[in-house]
Amino acid sequence: MYRLHCFCQSGNSYKVAFLLRALGQAYENVFVDFMHGMTRDDGWRARTNEMGEAPVLEDGARRLTQTGVILTHLARKHGAYGGKTLEEEQEILRWLFFDNHKFTSYFATYRFMKAFGPAAPDPAVMAWLKGRIDGAYGIVDRRLAASPFIVGTAPTIADFSLCGYLFYPVEESGYEVQSRFPGITAWLERVQKISGWALPYDILPGERIAPKWT
Amino acid sequence: MYRLHCFCQSGNSYKVAFLLRALGQAYENVFVDFMHGMTRDDGWRARTNEMGEAPVLEDGARRLTQTGVILTHLARKHGAYGGKTLEEEQEILRWLFFDNHKFTSYFATYRFMKAFGPAAPDPAVMAWLKGRIDGAYGIVDRRLAASPFIVGTAPTIADFSLCGYLFYPVEESGYEVQSRFPGITAWLERVQKISGWALPYDILPGERIAPKWT
Repeated sequence: MYRLHCFCQSGNSYKVAFLLRALGQAYENVFVDFMHGMTRDDGWRARTNEMGEAPVLEDGARRLTQTGVILTHLARKHGAYGGKTLEEEQEILRWLFFDNHKFTSYFATYRFMKAFGPAAPDPAVMAWLKGRIDGAYGIVDRRLAASPFIVGTAPTIADFSLCGYLFYPVEESGYEVQSRFPGITAWLERVQKISGWALPYDILPGERIAPKWT
Repeated sequence: MYRLHCFCQSGNSYKVAFLLRALGQAYENVFVDFMHGMTRDDGWRARTNEMGEAPVLEDGARRLTQTGVILTHLARKHGAYGGKTLEEEQEILRWLFFDNHKFTSYFATYRFMKAFGPAAPDPAVMAWLKGRIDGAYGIVDRRLAASPFIVGTAPTIADFSLCGYLFYPVEESGYEVQSRFPGITAWLERVQKISGWALPYDILPGERIAPKWT
């Protein structure tokens, strides 16, 4: 059985949990107490992930990290959501990289700093991050105005990847998607119809925390 | 023959150019005038890359974007620098994602804003980015203190990826690597011994620009 090291505030953990559910694979949650510094501990890094990040997926004796690698591994292994040709695989990987760099990363950081950071965030940093988010979301919104899913007419791991932070309550980030990005909004409705879909706080371990700075 | 859409300030372009040289592959440079807004143009985005980024690699009729995808594609196609087993491939991909999110991205942005941005950068944003760079560089430095290359004892595309912005003049970023990260510094010496290595400004097209804000 898979073991998923994860926590409920982590949209990257959610991407993997959602995919495992969609694939009908049983897995066990291993709670990572990120909010109390577990991933900053040298021992945890040495044992679990030198990059200091969750999620981590245990697949038998193997331990996989980086969400993009885990999604690719599961899609290949179970023969679903990974594309049917090399060209499709590469197109999916292209969006995983874009997500990792520009779509998930700036938004996840913005939300974390706004909702859960140790101190109220610097307005200049938040304004800068918001500009980056706007740019990335605009690119994906245009894509989704022309295509039902990120790559083609059926869901792939590119969709699992890009949707990861978009099912959290808007109160956490204060970043409004619905009124500004109709392509993304309509696509999120389609994503919710994928078998196994659920809200992050309903399937991931750890205590829900009220936003601090909003 | 490959056609590489690129420009000389782009360390991501450099990663691909360096790999093509190491593989002994002929290629033609197609200059992308990023510094004068070419990638922000809707026509360029529609024709070349909707993500608005360089590099783009033309391989016959195919057009590949996202540096991580291009590096993976070339390694697989030419049977070099891509790892020998599925486990090695996944370990390399893991570092490509880490690079894309945390190692290249924050530094590339920091350097760009400091050297070439349209206005002097906000000190709060720069301090925030510097903290992120310090964290990512520390992780890679510890890795390279224990391993001659990012994945194992021979170079792979993970090395081509992570080194991409580290051969630019330190005056551009003002970010000092040599005195602070001995593992990275020693590894850069090893990377320079890879066949085909050259400095970015010696092999990429476009006009060199003096740093503005340093």
